[in-house]
Amino acid sequence: MTSPEGFTKVIEETRLNATVDSNPYGPNPADYLSNVSSFQLIELTLREGEQFANAFFSLEKKIEIARALDDFGVDYIELTSPVASEQSRYDCEAICKLGLKAKILTHIRCHMDDAKIAVETGVDGVDVVIGTSQFLREYSHGKDMTYIAKAAVEVIEFVKSKGIEIRFSSEDSFRSDLVDLLNIYKTVDKIGVNRVGIADTVGGANPRQVYELVRTLKSVVNCDIECHFHNDTGCAIANAYTALEGGAKLIDVSVLGIGERNGITPLGGLMARMIAADRDYVLKKYKLHKLRDLENLVAEAVQVNIPFNNPITGFCAFTHKAGIHAKAILANPSTYEILSPGDFGLTRYIHFANRLTGWNAIKSRVDQLNLQLTDEQCKEVTEKIKKLGDVRQLNIDDVDSIIKDYHQDVSILSLDPDAVGLFDKYAPAEKKQKLSGGAYL
Amino acid sequence: MTSPEGFTKVIEETRLNATVDSNPYGPNPADYLSNVSSFQLIELTLREGEQFANAFFSLEKKIEIARALDDFGVDYIELTSPVASEQSRYDCEAICKLGLKAKILTHIRCHMDDAKIAVETGVDGVDVVIGTSQFLREYSHGKDMTYIAKAAVEVIEFVKSKGIEIRFSSEDSFRSDLVDLLNIYKTVDKIGVNRVGIADTVGGANPRQVYELVRTLKSVVNCDIECHFHNDTGCAIANAYTALEGGAKLIDVSVLGIGERNGITPLGGLMARMIAADRDYVLKKYKLHKLRDLENLVAEAVQVNIPFNNPITGFCAFTHKAGIHAKAILANPSTYEILSPGDFGLTRYIHFANRLTGWNAIKSRVDQLNLQLTDEQCKEVTEKIKKLGDVRQLNIDDVDSIIKDYHQDVSILSLDPDAVGLFDKYAPAEKKQKLSGGAYL
Repeated sequence: MTSPEGFTKVIEETRLNATVDSNPYGPNPADYLSNVSSFQLIELTLREGEQFANAFFSLEKKIEIARALDDFGVDYIELTSPVASEQSRYDCEAICKLGLKAKILTHIRCHMDDAKIAVETGVDGVDVVIGTSQFLREYSHGKDMTYIAKAAVEVIEFVKSKGIEIRFSSEDSFRSDLVDLLNIYKTVDKIGVNRVGIADTVGGANPRQVYELVRTLKSVVNCDIECHFHNDTGCAIANAYTALEGGAKLIDVSVLGIGERNGITPLGGLMARMIAADRDYVLKKYKLHKLRDLENLVAEAVQVNIPFNNPITGFCAFTHKAGIHAKAILANPSTYEILSPGDFGLTRYIHFANRLTGWNAIKSRVDQLNLQLTDEQCKEVTEKIKKLGDVRQLNIDDVDSIIKDYHQDVSILSLDPDAVGLFDKYAPAEKKQKLSGGAYL
Repeated sequence: MTSPEGFTKVIEETRLNATVDSNPYGPNPADYLSNVSSFQLIELTLREGEQFANAFFSLEKKIEIARALDDFGVDYIELTSPVASEQSRYDCEAICKLGLKAKILTHIRCHMDDAKIAVETGVDGVDVVIGTSQFLREYSHGKDMTYIAKAAVEVIEFVKSKGIEIRFSSEDSFRSDLVDLLNIYKTVDKIGVNRVGIADTVGGANPRQVYELVRTLKSVVNCDIECHFHNDTGCAIANAYTALEGGAKLIDVSVLGIGERNGITPLGGLMARMIAADRDYVLKKYKLHKLRDLENLVAEAVQVNIPFNNPITGFCAFTHKAGIHAKAILANPSTYEILSPGDFGLTRYIHFANRLTGWNAIKSRVDQLNLQLTDEQCKEVTEKIKKLGDVRQLNIDDVDSIIKDYHQDVSILSLDPDAVGLFDKYAPAEKKQKLSGGAYL
C-alpha cells in the first residue's frame, strides 16, 4: 500500500486533475492508484526486439536506434544481456558511454554469473528475471521457489551494493501460484528493489485479470511496478493501460512491438492509447511527431513493412470513407477521430472516390477544385460518381473528371441555355466527353 | 436483468464448466453473466470492411468471401446498406439467395426510407444504427433524443412486422450521455428488439469502461447485447473480450479487422483471444484451420499484406528465438505458447541461426541433421555459432555448415587421433574449410 503521504498526494492530484472529467477516455477519478497520467516507458527494442525473428542489429544500428529512442523521450532503454554473446557485451558498454538522457538497463537471468558481468558494463540498472510458473520451473530452470528466493536475494544485494538500480521480475507471472508470487515480491521489496515486474510471457492475460493482479501486488509492495505484456492474443496494449489503472508505473514497449513470436506492447500503439487518456501528459513528455521516423528506422532494420492497420502510422489510420463519416468529419473532426493526426505530424484524408461516398464529401472536393456548384448540383453529380463506383474501383482522377464534366455542362447551360438546348443535362457520358473534347470552346 | 430462468441456466452452465478452473485464461467463474463460453460472431467484412480505404468488392468477390465466412462458421454476415448504391442492393439480394447457414443482415440508418428497402432484399435481419453522442447529434444528423426514440420505435415496429430480426444500436456510445443511452435501450427492448448494440465508433474505449457499460446495460435490457469496437487505440480485441465477460453475447468482427480508419476487432485476433479462454468451444464452433486462407483471400482482395505481427498468421507468431525460450519449447511447447499452432493448421519454428541461440536449440538441429554429438560438443559448437552470429546475420546454411564441419572434425579425431594430430580441434575456420574441401577424404 502507498504510504499515507503518498495517499494524500494522489488524492490531491486527483482533485487538481478534476477538469479531465469531461474526457470519457481519461483516467477514472475513482482510481487513486492509477498511473495513467504519470506512467513511464521502458523501451525494449534493443533487447526483446533482438529476439524478433528478423532482427540482427549491428552496433552502428543499435546506436542509431538508441539515439532515436532517447530523442523520442523514453525513460529507460533496456539492452540484451552482456552474457548473450561477446559482441552483446561490447554493444552494451558502448551504448552506456553515449551519455543519453534515458537510463540504460540490461536484462539478465537471476544468477550471480550474469550479475557480475552486467554491473561492469556501465549500465544505470539491471533487470533480473526468473521463471516462476510451474511450466518454467519444471521445463526451463528446474528450480523451486526457495532456490529462486535465495538466488534473488543474493543477486539483488550484489547489484544494490554497486549503487545501481535493480528490478526483480517473475516470468510467466499469470501462470504462477499467486501466494508464491506475493511471497517472493514481498521478500525482494523488503531488501529494497527499485521495481518489481509482472510479465505475461505467453501473451494470454486479459485486462481484468491484469487489473486484479496489479492491485493485489500494489497492496503488498512499496516499490514501483513494471509490466511486460506479449501480444499473442491481441491484448498487449489494453493490458498495459489496465495495469497503469491498477497502479503499475512502468510499461515495457518496443518499436512496432517487435519481440519473441508476434511481440509485445508496441510503443506507437501505446502512445495512441495514452494520448486518448491524457493528451497533455503525453504531448509534454514524448516527441510524437518523431514516431513515424522511429518506426520506419526499425522497420527497415528488421525488414518488415509497417502493418496496414498500425495505430497512428498505418496508411489508413486517418482515412474516412463512408459518406456519413466524411460529412461529419468535414463539420468537426472530433466526430470520428479520438486521435488528432496533427499531434503526430500527420494529416487526415477524406476518401471520396468510391460508391459509399456522400454529397458532403463531393461538395468538399468541388470546393478544393475551386468550382461553383449548388448543393442540389453536388447531390446530382454525387449520384453519377456512385453509379460509376458501382461498376469499378474509382480513383481521384475519375471523380475529378466527372465533376469537371458536370460543372462544364451546367456552366454552359447557365451562360446560354438556348445554345446548348440540344444537350440534355443528363446526357450520356460519351456525349459530354465530346462536349468537353472542345466542340464548343 | 436476465429472467430468473436465464439466471438459473447460467449458474448451471457455470457449474458444468467448473473444470475450466485450471485454465487461468478461462472465464472467471465469478462472472455468471459472462458469455466467454457462448459468444457469437457478426462478421462485417462485407459492410464495415467495404468502408476500408482499399476495398472495392465485385459481386463475385463478395460471394466468394461470404461463402468462405459461412464455411468458417460465423453466425451472422452483415452487408452494406442496400441504399448505399444500386449495386449494393443487387449484391445484398444475391447473397441472401445463396442459402448460407449464416444469417444475413444489412446495416441501415434509423430511417423508414432505408428500412423499407432493406426488408425487401431478403435479409434475415436488419441492423439499425443512429448516432447518440453530442458530437454526432450536433454535426451528423442534428436530431435530439426524442426524435431518435420516435424514429427508432417506428423503424423497429416496421421491421418486426416483416418477421425478421432487428437490432438497434447507438453510435459513439461511449461519448453518449449514460441516461440518454439507457432510456433509449430500455424503450427499444420493451418493444422487442432482438439485440441492442454498443459501438465504440471512434475507438477510444478501454476495457474497464466497456465492462461497466455492458454490466449496466445488462441490468436494463432483456435482449442480447452486441458490441462493435474500433481499433484506433489498439484495444478492440481486449474490449471485445471484456464485453463478453460483462454479459455481451455478440461481437462484430471483420477479416484482418478491415474497416473505417485502421478498422475494428479482427476475426483472427479474436479467435486467438477466445481459444486461450475456451479452447473446446472455439474448436467446436469455428474451422480455425481455414483462418489463414480466409485472411489471404481478403488481403488479396483489398491489396494489403498480412501484418508481420498478426496474431496467429503473422509470419513469426510461432517462432521462438532466444536460447532460453527454445530450450523450454523443445522440452514442452506450453512453456512459451498459449496458442497451439496445430489448432490452426500451422507449425512452430525454432529460430536457431542467431547469436541469442542456446545449445539446446543447436542440439535439436544436430539431431535433425542425424549427426551424433555429445552435450559438451553441442555446447562447444554453439559457441562457434554465436561467435559468427556476432559478426553478421546468420541463415540455416551457415549454422549447418558450422555443425557439419565441427562434426567431421570430431569424427575424424575419434577415428584416428594420431592421423589428424596436426589439426587442433579449435583450428581456424579456413583450415577446416580445407579439411572439408576433401584433403583427407
